[in-house]
Amino acid sequence: MIIMKKILILGSTGSIGTSALELIRNNREEYQVVAISGNRNIELLKKQIEEFKPLAIYVGAEEEAIKIKNEYSFIEDIYFGENGLAELAKNSDYDIILTAVSGAIGIDATVEAIKREKRIALANKETMVSAGTYINRLLKEYPKAEIIPVDSEHSALFQSLQGFKKENVKKLIITASGGTFRGKNLEVLENVTVEEALKHPNWSMGKKITIDSSTLVNKGLEVIEAHELFNVPYDDIEVVVHPQSIIHSMVEYVDGSIIAQMGVPSMKTPILYAFSYPKKEFNASIDFLDLIKTKTLTFEEADRKVFKGIDLAYRAGRTGETMPTVFNAANEVAVELFMKKKIKFLDIYRIIEEAMDNHNLISLDTDEALSIIKEVDKETRRKVREQWER
Amino acid sequence: MIIMKKILILGSTGSIGTSALELIRNNREEYQVVAISGNRNIELLKKQIEEFKPLAIYVGAEEEAIKIKNEYSFIEDIYFGENGLAELAKNSDYDIILTAVSGAIGIDATVEAIKREKRIALANKETMVSAGTYINRLLKEYPKAEIIPVDSEHSALFQSLQGFKKENVKKLIITASGGTFRGKNLEVLENVTVEEALKHPNWSMGKKITIDSSTLVNKGLEVIEAHELFNVPYDDIEVVVHPQSIIHSMVEYVDGSIIAQMGVPSMKTPILYAFSYPKKEFNASIDFLDLIKTKTLTFEEADRKVFKGIDLAYRAGRTGETMPTVFNAANEVAVELFMKKKIKFLDIYRIIEEAMDNHNLISLDTDEALSIIKEVDKETRRKVREQWER
Repeated sequence: MIIMKKILILGSTGSIGTSALELIRNNREEYQVVAISGNRNIELLKKQIEEFKPLAIYVGAEEEAIKIKNEYSFIEDIYFGENGLAELAKNSDYDIILTAVSGAIGIDATVEAIKREKRIALANKETMVSAGTYINRLLKEYPKAEIIPVDSEHSALFQSLQGFKKENVKKLIITASGGTFRGKNLEVLENVTVEEALKHPNWSMGKKITIDSSTLVNKGLEVIEAHELFNVPYDDIEVVVHPQSIIHSMVEYVDGSIIAQMGVPSMKTPILYAFSYPKKEFNASIDFLDLIKTKTLTFEEADRKVFKGIDLAYRAGRTGETMPTVFNAANEVAVELFMKKKIKFLDIYRIIEEAMDNHNLISLDTDEALSIIKEVDKETRRKVREQWER
Repeated sequence: MIIMKKILILGSTGSIGTSALELIRNNREEYQVVAISGNRNIELLKKQIEEFKPLAIYVGAEEEAIKIKNEYSFIEDIYFGENGLAELAKNSDYDIILTAVSGAIGIDATVEAIKREKRIALANKETMVSAGTYINRLLKEYPKAEIIPVDSEHSALFQSLQGFKKENVKKLIITASGGTFRGKNLEVLENVTVEEALKHPNWSMGKKITIDSSTLVNKGLEVIEAHELFNVPYDDIEVVVHPQSIIHSMVEYVDGSIIAQMGVPSMKTPILYAFSYPKKEFNASIDFLDLIKTKTLTFEEADRKVFKGIDLAYRAGRTGETMPTVFNAANEVAVELFMKKKIKFLDIYRIIEEAMDNHNLISLDTDEALSIIKEVDKETRRKVREQWER
């Protein structure tokens, strides 16, 4: 007998959300979509509502939410506004929540899901970067809650850690495509445009993450996320540029073995694994890797002098406490400003660095950790905007 | 507290045996060498005896064995002759037996070790090829016995299977360096010499296995061994040429994930894992892989029309019963004849094919399986010699 798994998707109209729905479309016997959330792409959200008939939805704007509820009689609950995502996660009936929204807004919903001891298919790296210290403490309080990473790198690490002992890990090796601007120097980068930054060689992703990938801030976020998820010291986390994005990441063990997880660059396999773990499960929408066609895999060092996103992240992570929150918040606003063409590409690094330089570290060893994190997040954003949004 | 593991090494003077001793030399607190066996290289065997002070030894010739016993007072038991290896495995006090002898002579000792429910670090692929059906039946009778493969490909498969469910495997992908003659055509191969065949690009191994690697019969043996070890159908076992020998093999799962095990081409890591399993263990003699220096990994199809070793193995494996025994025995004699320059390189395939064509299959679904296997092995060797040894 197959037990239906009830899935809640935060960010169903995004790139990960639509991939998740495609997987579910191909396995309706096992998965039921109980709630979805969208924000700007109302047209797609409606199509998804019609197809998957969720019982609850979230939309950013209240009037839009009400309109949709009136249109579809099967929708029982609507959520909107700033706390709507967290409320959705708090009140809905689900087994797995896929947090596929981007940015720090995913944190509260994750917190609610942990408190209900659900499985979190975590596709929102900012949660662990910005609030990792708090989330890890919460996970100890609610031991039945489980976070299964969906980010392809962390899914690869998670898979490469299965079957071996954590204390036998020598290092985590996170692969990076190198982004659109791999091989470019600072002079070239000074004047690159948004349009150029949005062209990713291998992955088709959301805009924010594509920019992050071009600055390698994305890889920096992943280093911090890996540290928080797997409790591995920063000295034992390495970044290797692998332009083909076939090996999604690796774990090196003390005996000289490296275990790697590979596949076509697609989010479907990691999403599916987060849904089916500890099983692995076939799905008709999955593409399989053909190594003979792939032919060549290459590896090179990241140019950390040019792409400062990595070193800034290591600095933020090693400093700890509220510094990763600052790193993430400053980056989120910087990327937004860059996309609005208000700043230049390399200003992204300047903004992050300045924000970190000017931040007065606050200890998170307190019950107030989450509100401190939120306050620092807000304050960092405010300051960056104040100074750079003209 | 560390519990000392008592190690018995069959074939201590060979390439795998000396690697194993180097690992033990670097971890004397955990490992004790209780018995070793050598055959021709008496000088090296004596050095090993002096260093590791085993309580029992095996040497092929009786007089040599007696001489050695008289020389070293700490040696309590000596073994020699045809049944000596099996007797050693039957009578010695050990936790792990490393079967690093090459050829079908490793079978009896493995059988004895299984009956005593020991751990077998299996570095003798002929055991599973020639007697896999019987060995698997025996393992069911003695469920505490365990075989941990040491062959780098099978260790890689074994590792890539940890942490996942066997029923979720889509296929095993065995990598092949392609051997010394990769890219050569039949015309060239017709006249290659023993000296040319003995030059392996990546691995430093014994002579027999280096020749097997140049014919790709080695890869064929590995396909059959993988089938027997992991109970995966032949249709789901694939060979991919990977000239750098960095990825030692891979497992593809139904969800599109490929888990791979990588490392420098060295037998030390797989031997160490077979000793330390389920742990992974540091050892000062281990070399670690530097992917940045490695730079490029490539994959290509095997040229099965030229290198018939693979297809002949699939045929033998799919036919089953006594056919893999014939495949292995015919190959062993053919390689021996080639090394003695009595036959040409491509005659190796001819000899195997003829032996298989002329063999009348015998069912192994009987209590007499092991003696049938031995008889077929002997008979195949006799016939090949009779026809080709001039």
